[in-house]
Amino acid sequence: MLYKNRLLTPGPTPLPERVRLVMAGDMIHHRKPAFKALLGRVREGLAEIFGTAQPVLPLAASGTGAMTAAVTNLFAPGEKVLVVEGGMFGKRWTEIATGFGLRVTVLPVEWGFAVAPETVAAALDADPEIRGVLMQLSETSTTAQHPIEAVAAITRKLDLLLLVDGISGVGITPCPMDAWGIDCLLTGSQKGLMLPPGLALIALSERAWKKAEGLSCASFYFNLCKERENSGKNQTAFTPAISLIVGLAESLEMFREFGLENIYRKQWALTQMVRTGISALGLTLLAPKDPAWGVTGLRLPEGVAAPTLLARAADDYGVIMAAGQGEIKDKAIRIGHMGWVDFADMLAGLAALAGAFRACGGYLGCRNYLEQAEVAYHEALTRGYKRIPS
Amino acid sequence: MLYKNRLLTPGPTPLPERVRLVMAGDMIHHRKPAFKALLGRVREGLAEIFGTAQPVLPLAASGTGAMTAAVTNLFAPGEKVLVVEGGMFGKRWTEIATGFGLRVTVLPVEWGFAVAPETVAAALDADPEIRGVLMQLSETSTTAQHPIEAVAAITRKLDLLLLVDGISGVGITPCPMDAWGIDCLLTGSQKGLMLPPGLALIALSERAWKKAEGLSCASFYFNLCKERENSGKNQTAFTPAISLIVGLAESLEMFREFGLENIYRKQWALTQMVRTGISALGLTLLAPKDPAWGVTGLRLPEGVAAPTLLARAADDYGVIMAAGQGEIKDKAIRIGHMGWVDFADMLAGLAALAGAFRACGGYLGCRNYLEQAEVAYHEALTRGYKRIPS
Repeated sequence: MLYKNRLLTPGPTPLPERVRLVMAGDMIHHRKPAFKALLGRVREGLAEIFGTAQPVLPLAASGTGAMTAAVTNLFAPGEKVLVVEGGMFGKRWTEIATGFGLRVTVLPVEWGFAVAPETVAAALDADPEIRGVLMQLSETSTTAQHPIEAVAAITRKLDLLLLVDGISGVGITPCPMDAWGIDCLLTGSQKGLMLPPGLALIALSERAWKKAEGLSCASFYFNLCKERENSGKNQTAFTPAISLIVGLAESLEMFREFGLENIYRKQWALTQMVRTGISALGLTLLAPKDPAWGVTGLRLPEGVAAPTLLARAADDYGVIMAAGQGEIKDKAIRIGHMGWVDFADMLAGLAALAGAFRACGGYLGCRNYLEQAEVAYHEALTRGYKRIPS
Repeated sequence: MLYKNRLLTPGPTPLPERVRLVMAGDMIHHRKPAFKALLGRVREGLAEIFGTAQPVLPLAASGTGAMTAAVTNLFAPGEKVLVVEGGMFGKRWTEIATGFGLRVTVLPVEWGFAVAPETVAAALDADPEIRGVLMQLSETSTTAQHPIEAVAAITRKLDLLLLVDGISGVGITPCPMDAWGIDCLLTGSQKGLMLPPGLALIALSERAWKKAEGLSCASFYFNLCKERENSGKNQTAFTPAISLIVGLAESLEMFREFGLENIYRKQWALTQMVRTGISALGLTLLAPKDPAWGVTGLRLPEGVAAPTLLARAADDYGVIMAAGQGEIKDKAIRIGHMGWVDFADMLAGLAALAGAFRACGGYLGCRNYLEQAEVAYHEALTRGYKRIPS
């Protein structure tokens, strides 16, 4: 009872009480009218967040399941794709595509940075055999955000597909699928949607559907054409993750009440807040200029290891943050600010970070990092994200 | 407020309040010590129910996902398998295996009946190319139960694998994997385990693991070798369905408190109860002699259609039952008696069945079907299932 636990990881995130309470209701049957009506409402809410007129399909799987579904439904073994690889989740696209028998051209991006759209254009120009681009909206492992709109402008002109892993971005940062011309957008439930993990959501563009229809789906479980057919009847091909869909209806109602634009505004403000706090502490941001809107990373100076620091933040402050991933596993800390969190959670997070840093022998000179962070939050919230070029 | 809703379908099933309440807790992180400890406890509980010394692996998927995982991890395209096909879920094995490029020999079984083990033996003798047998423990669509122990005795002698879809059977009817010599046993969360759907569980025998290790896994998401490696560290390869695993720890604690043998005894008694009630009503059992222990079906006489009858049972009594599936969709009713249900729910189910039947113009002569059912329950519970040959 010294503190409340605060889950500040880039998924899973804390859950709103009202979402948890509806999920605690007794089970309902997925082939009955009440659930069908619920799925209908869920579809409407998801359509707004995904920004698409196409159906957003729920899969009982984690986000990686939806990535697998995207690759296996949209390509045939032997086809060539370009993967924008700027972190662990970029690598995951490569692994999935390679494992499925696609020929993969990797476009390496320095960790912590966004891809430059002109390098994508150059790679595509250089190899007309490439049939699709696979990338992240937010590369959770490096806390950098890729310029999807600009890449989509490139892929839209060519006859190839843009697949976007929006797992740490959908409902967090704007990514209107139809307006930008994305061909496949997917996410998981445990991020911006404020739910437990176990539900993945995926939508395809008209162009992508045409391609999927022409392929014989390689996966029995992840068969998007079959899911779309069921979706038209407010059903799913297999038993869905009922409790998560019940929770999703409630979290979408919260989105509706608060407004999607206000969510983005809040996420932008939290991002500015955490970045300002970290910089004020004299620490180095992992993504210096292309910030993800739901997670912020910092590089640890020599002599301070992530596991020790995380343990102190958890044990002394009840704040659960994440280490780096892959190459920077022990050399970075990532603070999640997505889902059911607010400015006060970030004050707690920054205070826990500073406290744990001191306890680990790190030197921090700044005395007013919390005030600076709070001011940054307030200013970003007031101005709104649209006036601030990212 | 005329009645309480009662979900008597063969999955999803009603959920215990204590399970729902733990799942309503706020989110925890899957890479942190508390969750690892939880997974460790879950593994122990599952080991007892599956009856295996091998790890039981959780997958964020519905049961069909685990069936896909089984096929794609244990066979290579081109291999030949035998599918025992006595209903819709037998057909699903065929679809998954065929879709994956296996050569499938179908052993057709009359719907509503168990396979005769000697026909399996004959089919295997006739074709030494067959590398595995795929079947159900409980064929949910016909409410018949297959003799897994006898089939396992046959497959164990040959160098081939026995894959058992235990989705409607695990935790409901005895199916000790190691003792019987099953090579792959899988289930879903929304049946005997008293949880929402969205979590699948799968275990392989030592022999099956040897085979899986020698194959390059065709699925990135359903990679059992990778899951086993993570399981050794009380982890999962991808973000797990955390809330369902939290609920599973609680439902397994209920299994532990009550005792697995007592669960089986209860399931057997409920089965006898429902069958007696249906027979007393003068209706025909769908599975006359090989009853599944978690669901009982009846054939509707001419002139009474399943949708109408189900609607009356739901609207007038609050009892949700299931129609038939496949060929017998509108001609059968299935009453689930698995998960968090007891004898009183079955009294309600039988009363709703009789009432809806009368309302649909069906003639029912019997006046004391409820008393007969209750007596059958009491007798079966007292005697125990071991003394009653099935």
